[in-house]
Amino acid sequence: MIIVIKNEKKNELEKLIKWIKNQGLDIHMSEGANATIVGLIGDTSKIDIDLISSLDIVESVKRISEPYKKVNRKFHPADTVISAGGREIGGGRFCFIAGPCSVENEEQIVGIALAVKKSGAHFLRGGAFKPRTSPYAFQGMGADGIELLKKAKKKSGLGIVTEIMNINHLDLFSDVDIIQVGARNMQNFDLLKELGQSKKPILLKRGLSGTIEEWLMSAEYVMSKGNENVILCERGIRTFEHYTRNTLDLSAIPLVKELTHLPVIVDPSHASGLSRLVRPMSLAATAAGSDGLIIEVHNDPPRALCDGAQSIRPEQFDELVKKIKDILPIVDKRL
Amino acid sequence: MIIVIKNEKKNELEKLIKWIKNQGLDIHMSEGANATIVGLIGDTSKIDIDLISSLDIVESVKRISEPYKKVNRKFHPADTVISAGGREIGGGRFCFIAGPCSVENEEQIVGIALAVKKSGAHFLRGGAFKPRTSPYAFQGMGADGIELLKKAKKKSGLGIVTEIMNINHLDLFSDVDIIQVGARNMQNFDLLKELGQSKKPILLKRGLSGTIEEWLMSAEYVMSKGNENVILCERGIRTFEHYTRNTLDLSAIPLVKELTHLPVIVDPSHASGLSRLVRPMSLAATAAGSDGLIIEVHNDPPRALCDGAQSIRPEQFDELVKKIKDILPIVDKRL
Amino acid sequence: MIIVIKNEKKNELEKLIKWIKNQGLDIHMSEGANATIVGLIGDTSKIDIDLISSLDIVESVKRISEPYKKVNRKFHPADTVISAGGREIGGGRFCFIAGPCSVENEEQIVGIALAVKKSGAHFLRGGAFKPRTSPYAFQGMGADGIELLKKAKKKSGLGIVTEIMNINHLDLFSDVDIIQVGARNMQNFDLLKELGQSKKPILLKRGLSGTIEEWLMSAEYVMSKGNENVILCERGIRTFEHYTRNTLDLSAIPLVKELTHLPVIVDPSHASGLSRLVRPMSLAATAAGSDGLIIEVHNDPPRALCDGAQSIRPEQFDELVKKIKDILPIVDKRL
Amino acid sequence: MIIVIKNEKKNELEKLIKWIKNQGLDIHMSEGANATIVGLIGDTSKIDIDLISSLDIVESVKRISEPYKKVNRKFHPADTVISAGGREIGGGRFCFIAGPCSVENEEQIVGIALAVKKSGAHFLRGGAFKPRTSPYAFQGMGADGIELLKKAKKKSGLGIVTEIMNINHLDLFSDVDIIQVGARNMQNFDLLKELGQSKKPILLKRGLSGTIEEWLMSAEYVMSKGNENVILCERGIRTFEHYTRNTLDLSAIPLVKELTHLPVIVDPSHASGLSRLVRPMSLAATAAGSDGLIIEVHNDPPRALCDGAQSIRPEQFDELVKKIKDILPIVDKRL
Repeated sequence: MIIVIKNEKKNELEKLIKWIKNQGLDIHMSEGANATIVGLIGDTSKIDIDLISSLDIVESVKRISEPYKKVNRKFHPADTVISAGGREIGGGRFCFIAGPCSVENEEQIVGIALAVKKSGAHFLRGGAFKPRTSPYAFQGMGADGIELLKKAKKKSGLGIVTEIMNINHLDLFSDVDIIQVGARNMQNFDLLKELGQSKKPILLKRGLSGTIEEWLMSAEYVMSKGNENVILCERGIRTFEHYTRNTLDLSAIPLVKELTHLPVIVDPSHASGLSRLVRPMSLAATAAGSDGLIIEVHNDPPRALCDGAQSIRPEQFDELVKKIKDILPIVDKRL
Repeated sequence: MIIVIKNEKKNELEKLIKWIKNQGLDIHMSEGANATIVGLIGDTSKIDIDLISSLDIVESVKRISEPYKKVNRKFHPADTVISAGGREIGGGRFCFIAGPCSVENEEQIVGIALAVKKSGAHFLRGGAFKPRTSPYAFQGMGADGIELLKKAKKKSGLGIVTEIMNINHLDLFSDVDIIQVGARNMQNFDLLKELGQSKKPILLKRGLSGTIEEWLMSAEYVMSKGNENVILCERGIRTFEHYTRNTLDLSAIPLVKELTHLPVIVDPSHASGLSRLVRPMSLAATAAGSDGLIIEVHNDPPRALCDGAQSIRPEQFDELVKKIKDILPIVDKRL
Repeated sequence: MIIVIKNEKKNELEKLIKWIKNQGLDIHMSEGANATIVGLIGDTSKIDIDLISSLDIVESVKRISEPYKKVNRKFHPADTVISAGGREIGGGRFCFIAGPCSVENEEQIVGIALAVKKSGAHFLRGGAFKPRTSPYAFQGMGADGIELLKKAKKKSGLGIVTEIMNINHLDLFSDVDIIQVGARNMQNFDLLKELGQSKKPILLKRGLSGTIEEWLMSAEYVMSKGNENVILCERGIRTFEHYTRNTLDLSAIPLVKELTHLPVIVDPSHASGLSRLVRPMSLAATAAGSDGLIIEVHNDPPRALCDGAQSIRPEQFDELVKKIKDILPIVDKRL
Repeated sequence: MIIVIKNEKKNELEKLIKWIKNQGLDIHMSEGANATIVGLIGDTSKIDIDLISSLDIVESVKRISEPYKKVNRKFHPADTVISAGGREIGGGRFCFIAGPCSVENEEQIVGIALAVKKSGAHFLRGGAFKPRTSPYAFQGMGADGIELLKKAKKKSGLGIVTEIMNINHLDLFSDVDIIQVGARNMQNFDLLKELGQSKKPILLKRGLSGTIEEWLMSAEYVMSKGNENVILCERGIRTFEHYTRNTLDLSAIPLVKELTHLPVIVDPSHASGLSRLVRPMSLAATAAGSDGLIIEVHNDPPRALCDGAQSIRPEQFDELVKKIKDILPIVDKRL
């Protein structure tokens, strides 16, 4: 970490230096014509950069080393491969997660599971607990929804992926293969810590205004508690453009794969909120180097209870899988 | 709600109309040269606008009535006045909440409480549970911090305000006067529902990327469960400008006061992250019509364990209170 | 256009209705329990939606028909194919535009032209007039730069693409094949009007904070003056994420292709500002349906006078072209 | 400037060092465990930080000294006071600029001029050339509009402020007291250079996505050509929040006043696009330390040809001026 000190405040520097040394760090000073530069030597991951930068004597601060460790590819150069539901994720393998926004009833979830399995999906997704902007909107089937997912798993052989919203629901997820943390909970730190004590693979979605660094720090929360099975998921960020619900940030894919060894997948359905963008954005995500896709598929979009029509139909999913299989060898990925 | 249907898809309209009627709504149709317009009559608050707008046959959708009810000034024209710690908030009265970022020890928190009380503060703030981007940063004193706040309350007579992060901690907050929900938890819906069953005043911060409508919907979550004591708090939104940590959106103050009857206060400390901006932004917030301020005050900023230097010192707070008292009559507010 | 009138202001509606009729429009009224809705019938493209929405009696406004006409695919369903430098752009054909950020000298520009031609480029790009944030930075070779581009065109047979910044420079561009309007000039309306009187193909970059609608309206400026040869270029928008210089909005590609018949290409070099992202983002843009790519290629990046290192080297460009050729048939495009 | 070099690329450092030295700069190296840090000594204002940061061997770059010079308060500590139309702007004096969005006819502009003069305005604003998103919208009266402004100036004694959009129109502005550069032209560098050769005061609006640093660099463009009379104007930035047209960034006021000696004023009318926000935002801007306000005032908002209803009426302006006069002494400003 490099701290630039305002020249006119140089005489107040002593207090800061003492504080830094109390944190167990060493210091390297360099005085210039316009500014004095203080380099911090040692493990600065505990140092709050916002604290430092808000000091009156500080012109600005810059991290040299990333604040994340277990997530960092520098300390773990090889790709992490995660096993879930009898399938490997990451390390050059591409996975398909597909299913409806919400679990609605047995016929629906089993029907979709069998259909997407046939097209080549590896996991079934489906919401049992639903984060909804309005308290008056359908909040999901809850525990019953998870039971139905388990039935669908049994009948289709697909692993299941579903979202957790409440720290006290963890017991309900014992047969779930991948636990999803939604975008709104990316910085629900108590939930992340709790999931860090589980061994279940965690699918961590990027928050609507989550920077890449914050997203990786949230993964670090899970890993720092002992759970190394984190899959990152880009799902669109909030920008000034309102034609799409969010702006899918595909450049995050190659960037995050540089910074971390964890697998990264893309959710093209929630990013745009428009079903007709699912296909082009799925192809683009694959070409950008994604390790997989999580796609909403519904057998009857207009009747779905939520987000229905950002879903594609099973036959559209089938076609899409074929197109993606054509792209995979071009980007050195395999199923 | 008005739904604009693509003209070339008019023949697929029937299914949608059936679905709308199943939701207990009536319909008013109007066919134009370029589009067919479907007006929904009845309570549309349960209708997911994103679902409708993602349908292939839909050109676009527009809400006519707001999706919030209990929060809505239309149905509750008079200002809500909230009682907390023996003090009224809202309805023309201006309140000061002041204190350190984190509770550190008894001497610190009692010392600051007495100092800000003397300057005119009505409530003491202080973090016991701290949401930190890094798992390696100080996470707050927890339950012990709340005990120290209670000691400071006893000695100073100030009401206390502190943040909850975990649904299972609610019991610890029984002597807290106002429970704060932080920006990162604005859409932690399970936490909001739980707080809705309490009777404690809730200070609901706007999320970093929370739209005004989403923020009000989160207040609706609390109110819909029976707790009508919600205070809104603007604390800066995330934008492209990185010179300040966030961009304080002061135009939200008059807007939100139009839309809702709930009190709205401003946090100028977290918005910018720069202590030297606390004074001008506090004056500006007051002039914009805020019902109060929540300000970080610390007796020794550089030694503070977190956010320390976005804090001002007690003597700066004292001066600031005087300036604000001069502005209050100009904007028809009183202490 | 639909205008929702506040119910309590209904009695002030007459003045607005008179004003609307003075604009040559008809009106369709519909009174509801919470609001009165005024539908405008006729050509509303001259109506300023911001004017209407800022009226005190207006709750909100919504356009039904797009404010652009010549750009609109509704009135021109077939893809526009643009001829430039002996090459067709759009209509299923994919084009490569490649070259250095700035023209530096004859050897450089001719060298790069021959190299990218060999790899399969159709056009040579190179900046003669450079928009630079700092007045102290190199501003380009100006007219001399255009002369060197013409030499490179002669030697390589490639069409040339270069940026105009000043309305008075148009004469210098008579031998340029495609005139580029940079992101910062997307709403330089006097420049757009002037270019509308030319017949030259215009490459119109999206502004850093340009919405899709504003971008299309800027194309409408050019087309409304008589020049129908507009190529749109997505190059990244400004968001809160600062890890990349801008966030490439690839979902804009399929969306814009729905809304307009004009060709749309992508600039992956300026979007991220990182040369190592050029390849994955080029592949992703192609998979998303782009009609071409404009890529910075430099034979000696570290010595380049500007943006040098967001450039890739000719041998990297050569490899990239091969990969893209593999993707084209999957998305029904051809060279 | 500090450049952090990736450790694994240290051996490629020589080329960069040579290039830096060719720019006339000296170097200070410091090798750490994780990175090598290169400090640049000398005038780095010509160095393109984006170029450096895009190099493969570079981990990150940080400026120590600001890239602007003439604008910089460090080199010019005293407030700049600008004389225009017989009135001083800046240096503790507060000014009011008021008038309609567009000049419409003599009666209108003279009527408003006399009204706002009576309430205490120092300058009359009014658009003759109007930047409009749509080519079909009213583009202003042009040269005739400027003639009418001159008549209003003669009758009221107010200085006049109006926007330039075209480099070739400068001659028409010889009797204008302050030339406005609109938000969309903040980075129209050729226009800025031309205005730098004039001696007229320039009112430089912040662009919709202009960072504070870019805004100051645009002022530097004008000043570097010899014109030191630049007034900055905050008018709202583009964010995800769409309830207001833009988000007024009032924290920019104290920040910009720290960084530069130039006066800074606020435009509350364009920021929100809602006339009912003009009053609270004007008071807030004044309390935040603004050197003045530019406010849209119209005698008949609903009939105005553009932006009409973000305007307030003369009697509302009159009341607002009184309120602001009450705030001025609290923030150490005078008329």
